[in-house]
Amino acid sequence: MPYVNIRVAGTLSKDQKSNICKGVTEVIAREAGKPPEAILIFIDEVPHENIAKAGNLLTPPK
Amino acid sequence: MPYVNIRVAGTLSKDQKSNICKGVTEVIAREAGKPPEAILIFIDEVPHENIAKAGNLLTPPK
Amino acid sequence: MPYVNIRVAGTLSKDQKSNICKGVTEVIAREAGKPPEAILIFIDEVPHENIAKAGNLLTPPK
Amino acid sequence: MPYVNIRVAGTLSKDQKSNICKGVTEVIAREAGKPPEAILIFIDEVPHENIAKAGNLLTPPK
Amino acid sequence: MPYVNIRVAGTLSKDQKSNICKGVTEVIAREAGKPPEAILIFIDEVPHENIAKAGNLLTPPK
Amino acid sequence: MPYVNIRVAGTLSKDQKSNICKGVTEVIAREAGKPPEAILIFIDEVPHENIAKAGNLLTPPK
Repeated sequence: MPYVNIRVAGTLSKDQKSNICKGVTEVIAREAGKPPEAILIFIDEVPHENIAKAGNLLTPPK
Repeated sequence: MPYVNIRVAGTLSKDQKSNICKGVTEVIAREAGKPPEAILIFIDEVPHENIAKAGNLLTPPK
Repeated sequence: MPYVNIRVAGTLSKDQKSNICKGVTEVIAREAGKPPEAILIFIDEVPHENIAKAGNLLTPPK
Repeated sequence: MPYVNIRVAGTLSKDQKSNICKGVTEVIAREAGKPPEAILIFIDEVPHENIAKAGNLLTPPK
Repeated sequence: MPYVNIRVAGTLSKDQKSNICKGVTEVIAREAGKPPEAILIFIDEVPHENIAKAGNLLTPPK
Repeated sequence: MPYVNIRVAGTLSKDQKSNICKGVTEVIAREAGKPPEAILIFIDEVPHENIAKAGNLLTPPK
């Protein structure tokens, strides 16, 4: 029952989400020997200003 | 100090959230022997297209 | 596809875990209208000294 | 590679987020002996009605 | 700064962890257009009896 | 009711955990205007080989 949480800065298109979920599911199923049906993925799209690295908030790309 | 995070696809009404939090708090307080006041619950309402099972994004119910 | 994460201080017996998971699944299935089979719960048993309230680490019960 | 997730009820101003991230990064870098550049912080601003204490949903301040 | 958390039932070998992290990083870098160096992955190996599906604790494979 | 989760590679001494929790609580209480008693922190000490950056597992310091 693998659970995967992917948190990214900004937004993704539906195609990007779909491709990421397909690819990540395939990798985990193959490498961990888990059935794909058991793999649950949640993607969180987080505003840049809610993420910090080295103490500085990220800024969105222009 | 139990912390509970509940992540669901789509949205819940305020009544649903209230009933879930009451019920889950009661179960954990009773079974784990923790005071209800110490139980903190966060509910995340996640868009269907941000969740995947078996590599496929969920689709909202029609 | 609800995902639930329950984090408690200290350890639980297998019976406590089982009862918590049965009860929490029942509450969420009933109140959120989700099929029980779709509900995935992860319990984290966290050492008291890794949890703080008001800035003070918890101490295990004697 | 410390990862920090801060979940608060309601919203924060950009200045509050910035000050929190600076301060938390400084504390962890100093006390845990980690380079600030390695510290990644995600802030989640969660609606009051999605958080419960003692089984009761929070209400926003008036 | 993508952050990924992968939670699996039971344990993984170091090779499995390595292959999963390489593969997942590659997928996210390619599909989300993020630099691999920015991708941080945490794997949690969770005992079967701490995970429940449909209200029933998992049992380890024999 | 701020909830904070701090995930670090390797282990921390009890003094380090205590100092981190005191400092982080103080920062969030001051900057977010939350009462310290409401701030709950969980620290996760994660083995180096369960964390990856740029697709490579971390190695513990020698």
